[in-house]
Amino acid sequence: MEIKNKYVTIKTNINGAPKESDFEIKVENVSLIIESESEFKDVVVKNMFVSIDPYQINRMKSQSSSQGTISFATAISPGDSIDSYGVGRVLFSHRPDFKKGDLVAGLLTWGEYSIVKEGSLLNKLDPNTGFPLSYHVGVLGFSGLTAYGGFFEVCKPKPGEKVFVSAASGSIGHLVGQYAKLLGCYVVGSAGSQEKVNFLKERLGFDDAFNYKQETDLKSALKRCFPQGIDVYFDNVGGRMLEAAVANMNSFGRVAVCGVISEYTNATTRAAPEMLDIVYKRITIKGFLASDLMNVYAEFLSKTVEYLKGGKLKTIEDISRGVESIPSAFIGLFNGENMGKKIVKVADE
Amino acid sequence: MEIKNKYVTIKTNINGAPKESDFEIKVENVSLIIESESEFKDVVVKNMFVSIDPYQINRMKSQSSSQGTISFATAISPGDSIDSYGVGRVLFSHRPDFKKGDLVAGLLTWGEYSIVKEGSLLNKLDPNTGFPLSYHVGVLGFSGLTAYGGFFEVCKPKPGEKVFVSAASGSIGHLVGQYAKLLGCYVVGSAGSQEKVNFLKERLGFDDAFNYKQETDLKSALKRCFPQGIDVYFDNVGGRMLEAAVANMNSFGRVAVCGVISEYTNATTRAAPEMLDIVYKRITIKGFLASDLMNVYAEFLSKTVEYLKGGKLKTIEDISRGVESIPSAFIGLFNGENMGKKIVKVADE
Repeated sequence: MEIKNKYVTIKTNINGAPKESDFEIKVENVSLIIESESEFKDVVVKNMFVSIDPYQINRMKSQSSSQGTISFATAISPGDSIDSYGVGRVLFSHRPDFKKGDLVAGLLTWGEYSIVKEGSLLNKLDPNTGFPLSYHVGVLGFSGLTAYGGFFEVCKPKPGEKVFVSAASGSIGHLVGQYAKLLGCYVVGSAGSQEKVNFLKERLGFDDAFNYKQETDLKSALKRCFPQGIDVYFDNVGGRMLEAAVANMNSFGRVAVCGVISEYTNATTRAAPEMLDIVYKRITIKGFLASDLMNVYAEFLSKTVEYLKGGKLKTIEDISRGVESIPSAFIGLFNGENMGKKIVKVADE
Repeated sequence: MEIKNKYVTIKTNINGAPKESDFEIKVENVSLIIESESEFKDVVVKNMFVSIDPYQINRMKSQSSSQGTISFATAISPGDSIDSYGVGRVLFSHRPDFKKGDLVAGLLTWGEYSIVKEGSLLNKLDPNTGFPLSYHVGVLGFSGLTAYGGFFEVCKPKPGEKVFVSAASGSIGHLVGQYAKLLGCYVVGSAGSQEKVNFLKERLGFDDAFNYKQETDLKSALKRCFPQGIDVYFDNVGGRMLEAAVANMNSFGRVAVCGVISEYTNATTRAAPEMLDIVYKRITIKGFLASDLMNVYAEFLSKTVEYLKGGKLKTIEDISRGVESIPSAFIGLFNGENMGKKIVKVADE
């Protein structure tokens, strides 16, 4: 049995902002070995929804990039399929724990089908949760875990504290702000358009928000929004915003660095926070990855399901359709085109 | 009763590197109110040893300095006496808990006499410890506490970890390196001369050391000294060295920022570490002040006394004499002139 798999790859390593011509859509023939005695333990998944995340750009850089940590991000070579979190349905399985028709979430690929090797992340989904399947890619998937664990475990917030979130209308930021409100914090977000700012304030209950593109001085903008200073900064952008946040922080302030999208495509834009502030105000800056937060996964999931069912947490999804739309969906992340979690729907349910 | 007190003050606020002409020696007449019924609760101390520390420069800057945290460092105005940790002998006391002749350590001044107000730091010293009095200014005083608490509490080191200390022959660095060796870590220090480098390796037992002034590329220098990467960086300097350390850090590496002497006198030299490293390697950067470490004071003191008595810990002191030498002693800190703890002996014992 053979299937044709249409998938996205890079034509060349990308240093700088990604553009359409960096990508190509390829078609491969996948032969499925169907003997049950096979030594293979693959699960073939028909992809339904795949996650589109900014961090992927770090895997597409050349190894000679000046951004030294490149060895920590599993590299994608030109021609390779690109693995990414997603949701799909099992088409064929060599493993007894998965059978044809099962709904699954795990490490799929930017394409129509994924061949999931043994040992790679794959979990069965309960088909009766009542939530849209796409939620398992975003709010109930790694974006949600990153927001929940990054905020509660890394920032260690207390009710009443003043919380700043950058890229606040993004996949993770819009959830962090709401978790912070649910805890009883004062929450301000930054975003890149008036539409996003209005959405944060009017629909998601942020106490305040501002359009960073309209501000001539980010330090003053934060001073205006935080007359009593910032206790917690959930950083998705790095660069000048991190410097401005540190300048406005209170003693014992905490910065959780989830991502630095302003630095991903520009190795020369690097945050240089005032170190005297860091010493005198005893500030902690801490980078983290969602994969370190599995210890709170069960708590995250039960709380988040409860909040969603109770209408206390809203999630925003920005869904494009078809494998062909993946490159532009990805490129759009770096131009601030998405609102909420960016997902591509690869196939109907 | 009246005494003449010779003391050091600044003529003007200092922005940039300090120089002799920024300081002046003044003489004031101090009237001592000796009625025992006095409402004053002052203790007048004849100073013997006073501590000379780089952080004082941050108190001498003008309030309009671009280094925003200036409001956290208690400002020194031109003409003011300059308070500083030190050791002396009580000359006169309005308080029942101190009497004439008591040896004390606490917040004295850069001068011959200190009038210590109620509520200000002042503790009696045991005259029979067997240690030189100057030790109570350095290794058994705030420098020691900063080294001990900063290393054990902030860095949370484990035996076998790879530890880097900058300004390693300085008042705090030379102690941190030895505490790290006592714990069983691999320890490398940076310093500003071959003499200091030799001292660290040959006398203090550092595993390796390098002269940062002889290195064209700090990142390569650290790669050479730490082929297996850095787990803990005790930062006394900030700037380019912090960037190089972050580039060479292992996953879950920790940076304790004790001071940033390279940035104190140059507001434009600011560390811009690679944020991608901070995220992917889950690095923590944490500023701290010794005043937050009082919870480990008793432990620090008993351990340090034990190490000193057992010959397991050496302390280096760099002692100048006389109030008149205070400005040059202070200025020398920024030129790397001191070796170990810089102290001025104001009067004989």
